[in-house]
Amino acid sequence: MTTTEAPELRVDAQNNRNRILDVARDTFAARGLDAPMAAIARRAGVGVATLYRRFPTKESLIAEAFADKIEQCTSVIDDGLADPDPWHGFCMVVEQVCAMQAVDRGLTAALVTTFPDVSAFDAMRLKAERGFEVLAQRAKDAGRLRQDFEFDDLTMVLMANGGLITTSTEAALAASRRLVAFLLQSFRADRAEPLPPSTPLGLDNVIPRPQ
Amino acid sequence: MTTTEAPELRVDAQNNRNRILDVARDTFAARGLDAPMAAIARRAGVGVATLYRRFPTKESLIAEAFADKIEQCTSVIDDGLADPDPWHGFCMVVEQVCAMQAVDRGLTAALVTTFPDVSAFDAMRLKAERGFEVLAQRAKDAGRLRQDFEFDDLTMVLMANGGLITTSTEAALAASRRLVAFLLQSFRADRAEPLPPSTPLGLDNVIPRPQ
Repeated sequence: MTTTEAPELRVDAQNNRNRILDVARDTFAARGLDAPMAAIARRAGVGVATLYRRFPTKESLIAEAFADKIEQCTSVIDDGLADPDPWHGFCMVVEQVCAMQAVDRGLTAALVTTFPDVSAFDAMRLKAERGFEVLAQRAKDAGRLRQDFEFDDLTMVLMANGGLITTSTEAALAASRRLVAFLLQSFRADRAEPLPPSTPLGLDNVIPRPQ
Repeated sequence: MTTTEAPELRVDAQNNRNRILDVARDTFAARGLDAPMAAIARRAGVGVATLYRRFPTKESLIAEAFADKIEQCTSVIDDGLADPDPWHGFCMVVEQVCAMQAVDRGLTAALVTTFPDVSAFDAMRLKAERGFEVLAQRAKDAGRLRQDFEFDDLTMVLMANGGLITTSTEAALAASRRLVAFLLQSFRADRAEPLPPSTPLGLDNVIPRPQ
């Protein structure tokens, strides 16, 4: 019996951990990053002590909940940078990241919020931001991306895409694909018409920092 | 004294009513249309009895909270239809409605949700929808709006615009102006490139009906 119990316990602990992370993503998405730890524990069906045993600080829970997604974004951007066609790489990255976001609402918060106390997480996101800036500059230099495209426009795309909340994931994904297709057509250098000034969104302006 | 008291009472009642409507708009925007009446009364600082005295049903509160805005939308669409330049009229309507929405998050819910039991309200919204369809058809007939623009794309624009939630109204308005400018450039017939299929968003699909 003991030989079978040990793996089961490990499976239980892992299930617990996954359930906490799922609930955390849902809760942060629905209520923002200042949702209390106690509410997350309650919804996950675990005690507060168990929650803190697995995630000693709220920042560590936030970072863990979104780490995979941010890493996926970084990897998509690396693929875009490796594309010999800068415009194709740029479009692919916007399409992929928006598709990921359409099926995971929590990702919007993770992408546009700064976690000052989670340096590893923030470093990863900073890497993604820098990568995207290089990607955009390459597409401009190739004469394909309009010159007045600014980094804040990426934030704008992500916020707009995050607004396509429907009762069905399929509908959200379809709406996201169409929105992104419209926007990428308007980002083309050969179609550029004057625009209102870029938005001083600033990443921290969008969603308040967690308290 | 009595001659001054009566107007003050009327002013109090009116202030009460306005506060309830303000709180209702905020609450519906933040929590959706199934937010309970008791929560609205509590946040407005009035008793539940007072709330029901002013608004006998929840539907009547919803309709009243958003009636002005829907009427403003209808009036903007009438202006657009009166514009001798169909494309200019179309762009003006999209710009104006999105600007209204950027400073009033509750409007998204009002624009995309059907209230089956509030026929006067629904009739007004239906009028706005029909008006927009005529506006879009005129802009297509004039060769300015791309032929594959569909009514669901308006819902998509409104949802995307509603996603531009920032901590400052000014930033939201600026972001909205820029998003709308990008989108209108991509809606032009002379720039049309193939798109993914239109989204089966359907108005009721976006935000669940109130219970």
